[in-house]
Amino acid sequence: MSDTALELRSLIKKSGELELSLAKVALPEPGSDHVLVKVEATPINPSDLGLLLGPADMATAKTTGSGAATVVTAKVPAGALPFLAARLDQPMPVGNEGAGTVIKAGDSDAAKALKGKTVSMIGGAMYAQYRLVKASDCQALPAGTTAAEGASWFVNPLTALGMTETMKREGHKALIHTAAASNLGQMLNKICLKDAIALVNIVRSAEQAKLLKGIGAKHVVDSSAASFLDDLTQALVDTGATIAFDAIGGGKLASQILTAMELALNKTAKTYSRYGSSVHKQIYIYGGLNTGPTELGRNYGMAWGVGGWLLTPFLQKIGRPDQTRLRERVVAELKTTFASHYTKTISLAEALDLKNIALYNKRATGEKFLINPNKG
Amino acid sequence: MSDTALELRSLIKKSGELELSLAKVALPEPGSDHVLVKVEATPINPSDLGLLLGPADMATAKTTGSGAATVVTAKVPAGALPFLAARLDQPMPVGNEGAGTVIKAGDSDAAKALKGKTVSMIGGAMYAQYRLVKASDCQALPAGTTAAEGASWFVNPLTALGMTETMKREGHKALIHTAAASNLGQMLNKICLKDAIALVNIVRSAEQAKLLKGIGAKHVVDSSAASFLDDLTQALVDTGATIAFDAIGGGKLASQILTAMELALNKTAKTYSRYGSSVHKQIYIYGGLNTGPTELGRNYGMAWGVGGWLLTPFLQKIGRPDQTRLRERVVAELKTTFASHYTKTISLAEALDLKNIALYNKRATGEKFLINPNKG
Repeated sequence: MSDTALELRSLIKKSGELELSLAKVALPEPGSDHVLVKVEATPINPSDLGLLLGPADMATAKTTGSGAATVVTAKVPAGALPFLAARLDQPMPVGNEGAGTVIKAGDSDAAKALKGKTVSMIGGAMYAQYRLVKASDCQALPAGTTAAEGASWFVNPLTALGMTETMKREGHKALIHTAAASNLGQMLNKICLKDAIALVNIVRSAEQAKLLKGIGAKHVVDSSAASFLDDLTQALVDTGATIAFDAIGGGKLASQILTAMELALNKTAKTYSRYGSSVHKQIYIYGGLNTGPTELGRNYGMAWGVGGWLLTPFLQKIGRPDQTRLRERVVAELKTTFASHYTKTISLAEALDLKNIALYNKRATGEKFLINPNKG
Repeated sequence: MSDTALELRSLIKKSGELELSLAKVALPEPGSDHVLVKVEATPINPSDLGLLLGPADMATAKTTGSGAATVVTAKVPAGALPFLAARLDQPMPVGNEGAGTVIKAGDSDAAKALKGKTVSMIGGAMYAQYRLVKASDCQALPAGTTAAEGASWFVNPLTALGMTETMKREGHKALIHTAAASNLGQMLNKICLKDAIALVNIVRSAEQAKLLKGIGAKHVVDSSAASFLDDLTQALVDTGATIAFDAIGGGKLASQILTAMELALNKTAKTYSRYGSSVHKQIYIYGGLNTGPTELGRNYGMAWGVGGWLLTPFLQKIGRPDQTRLRERVVAELKTTFASHYTKTISLAEALDLKNIALYNKRATGEKFLINPNKG
């Protein structure tokens, strides 16, 4: 083992240039509560691309060097620079989550217990050959589970579980998900089928509806169908869903969902309220596939809310014991409910190959890359 | 005293017709916990108009009969009927709050204590010559306070107090109010000045700004000024307000307030977050002066919420002891903090006069009607 290792860096310069490179860093010694992990698998999630490529125009991308000396450059539109003030001229490490083998451990009990184990990790900077990480940011994987199987253990699984947990904590009995054919949406379907939670899937095409029905989804509504609002209202009468998680954000969809909820509630209401149904209807926007404004028609009484939803504040709110319960469920079901599928496994240098960047930057449904930073 | 009395009724028929009339009802005998009140003053609040007129198109309104036999009819757009399912073909009594003299009382201690007293009341159906009401829905007025002074004791005063209470309960240190020159807005200013709470008033004209400054408002921002967004951001830097109560509802104002909150937070932030400020920013929409869609630009990170806010669920949430504390404060300050001003006092029959309807349905700032159901 060398005393230095490679770590991917994304730099946006004040001059308006993105530069991706592999830095050589010294291997650190773990402190008492830390472990040093040889990273063997780390996925490229949509949430990683924002930090990795930023708003750079990848059509202008060029490469110099090769292997560990590869450097990618691309132009960043001048208009985007003011929004990036806090990261300009600072090389940023990338990669939210990953998995690998603990090769050194500090002297705390929690750290020592992980020595030699295959672990999943969270905390950023995973696109690196070695990662120094707090023991509490690791989860030991069950025997027989590989690093590749444990790499995508956090972002998608805990977001999907965060949705059903939020539903329960806020007193709803069923939920709605938009852009439901996504990797995350399919995972949410598996959770809901297993936990007997009614889930209304909103998709944007007949093909996506077919895909979800193929994995057992019971309530699938196609927003491209002429009967969309009627279909959605009927699904809400059938399920009683009064909370939605929306990846679209812009346009009228959030408002249409609130309207359908109100219509469904009024169909079963026994007394009139001049302010609409008194049942609280909630939309959480967690993505922005449509970056336009959200248009709320407000024809659904006064008992409604729309707001942003993010995994990290949710986890802070529920506290460590419940976080641990969710993490343990994920690792126990990594080969079933929370299984991820990758189209390609690449090295750090290959992550800087322009052909690969063009593929993983498409963010196509069903297309997902895994990096093995120690791939030979 | 006759054994029947008049009570205003609002009926929306399945056929799509609004019908306003005065029903003759028998005078009931109070049960143990009830009192019978001769209603002498009951205001027409914007919140009463929703039940009284519903979504009827008052440009189509017609009258037949006169005096106590007056009947007003108007067309209700077909598209609005599904949202009214629970009230169709049921004559609804109207009038949230009022005041009058207790003329009969049940035999419970609470009821007997109110005999002969001038009381304020809450509970609906106040547009009536007599109202049978639970003793616990009454508040005896201090000696020297008239029914007219006590009529608007609940909706506006408790809404204004509900705003500062919600601010405190949800962990904000200052608040924003829109359409701030309204009767309610002036009341909120008096509360905030008395309680030393920083309040940012958003008004829609230089005249309204002047009016509020004249009653001592410290932070007044005019949305019709070219410098509105800069002025608002500065007021939010000065006060730290992160919660707003919005009577407008439609258009871009709610989103502009969230943007200004985020800009103000970023001006004082010490660390950068790629998902925006982690401080929760909240808009509660409690009115709909602009009935168009609410447009949310979502350029303020993920820690934000927009939702409906209503007095009744708020009061249910805080429970009876806190309700009592707020009620007692209101009646103690009816001639100062919570004083209301009326432009006209009318009878029940005059409330069905098309010219009066046109005036009170304008919901104009500074224009407020009082009904005296026993006016000769």
